[in-house]
Amino acid sequence: MSTASPVLDELLDALRCLPGVGARSAQRMAYHLLERDRQGGGRLATALQAAMQRIGNCVECRSFSESERCALCAGSTRERSQLCVVETPADLAAIEHATGYRGLYFVLLGRLSPLDGLGPEELGLPLLQRRLAQGEVRELILATNPTVEGEATAHYLAELAQTAGVRVSRLAHGVPLGGELEYIDRGTLAHAFGSRLPLN
Amino acid sequence: MSTASPVLDELLDALRCLPGVGARSAQRMAYHLLERDRQGGGRLATALQAAMQRIGNCVECRSFSESERCALCAGSTRERSQLCVVETPADLAAIEHATGYRGLYFVLLGRLSPLDGLGPEELGLPLLQRRLAQGEVRELILATNPTVEGEATAHYLAELAQTAGVRVSRLAHGVPLGGELEYIDRGTLAHAFGSRLPLN
Repeated sequence: MSTASPVLDELLDALRCLPGVGARSAQRMAYHLLERDRQGGGRLATALQAAMQRIGNCVECRSFSESERCALCAGSTRERSQLCVVETPADLAAIEHATGYRGLYFVLLGRLSPLDGLGPEELGLPLLQRRLAQGEVRELILATNPTVEGEATAHYLAELAQTAGVRVSRLAHGVPLGGELEYIDRGTLAHAFGSRLPLN
Repeated sequence: MSTASPVLDELLDALRCLPGVGARSAQRMAYHLLERDRQGGGRLATALQAAMQRIGNCVECRSFSESERCALCAGSTRERSQLCVVETPADLAAIEHATGYRGLYFVLLGRLSPLDGLGPEELGLPLLQRRLAQGEVRELILATNPTVEGEATAHYLAELAQTAGVRVSRLAHGVPLGGELEYIDRGTLAHAFGSRLPLN
């Protein structure tokens, strides 16, 4: 849908680079900003520019950071003997938000997926191996997603850790809290049943 | 939810000025751009900046335009004797997209709503009155929304047009095409029944 204004057309088109935003949402967003929140639009433009130019990856954990080391890796308050491996910075944020974990992280920025050209190099595993070899890390916590590729990645990481003599753990899988058995998928239910824990 | 990066925090916060974007969508958008589409993010920043700074309102129809007169009003291909009044530029875009209308528009940028401080002045009605008095417009098409305020606005506009001796019409209301009577709201159904048209 083209309007009579090239500047507006360009904005409508550029908004569609956001995930989940199609032609109609782009129009709603653009018109909302132009009609009611030009200040917010200007602020968003500045924030986007700054983020795209200044945010890189932390040299230690590979998460997003505008400095060489992110605040978590550079800080002195975290337990340096625990290292939690996640696929994405969003997974890191979810764990930080939901749990009381006080250790450090390592972000793969993906998962092993040879067909997509994602091998150990792309996931920064040589960096992780060097870190495990230094001896500071005592426990490697595998928090990759419970998908086929995530599980394969966890398996690979577990072998790396065992070679380095580091303890490995994996997030527990099972029935989510508040879930109803009737509506849980078969795979999860079978896994939860097979991994049942003794209560006494 | 705060991350370890102030630049990222500012982006997450600024994204929430977009309609329908909460904390989770903002995070998804920011991470998507940073991980997979930095070029798109930069382009969006530039487009936003340009739009917020350069897009104003057309002096004739009050729709969005980066020049004094929008392309529709400045062009010579449109029928200048028909004038369609809409509430917002989005309504204008919807009519342009769906119908073969070849006349001009007048955008109220709102609807009569005294409680919100929106009176005839704010809707540009003195401008519309001068235009009707010039005698070029032969038909005023009222395409305000079929809400209480939209109907009140249409009523007010109809009186303006009658005073100026200009023909007035209103979009037809009734059962939407493809709608099922069973699921249509009572008000619409009653209106459609009362306004039934003879077929022979």
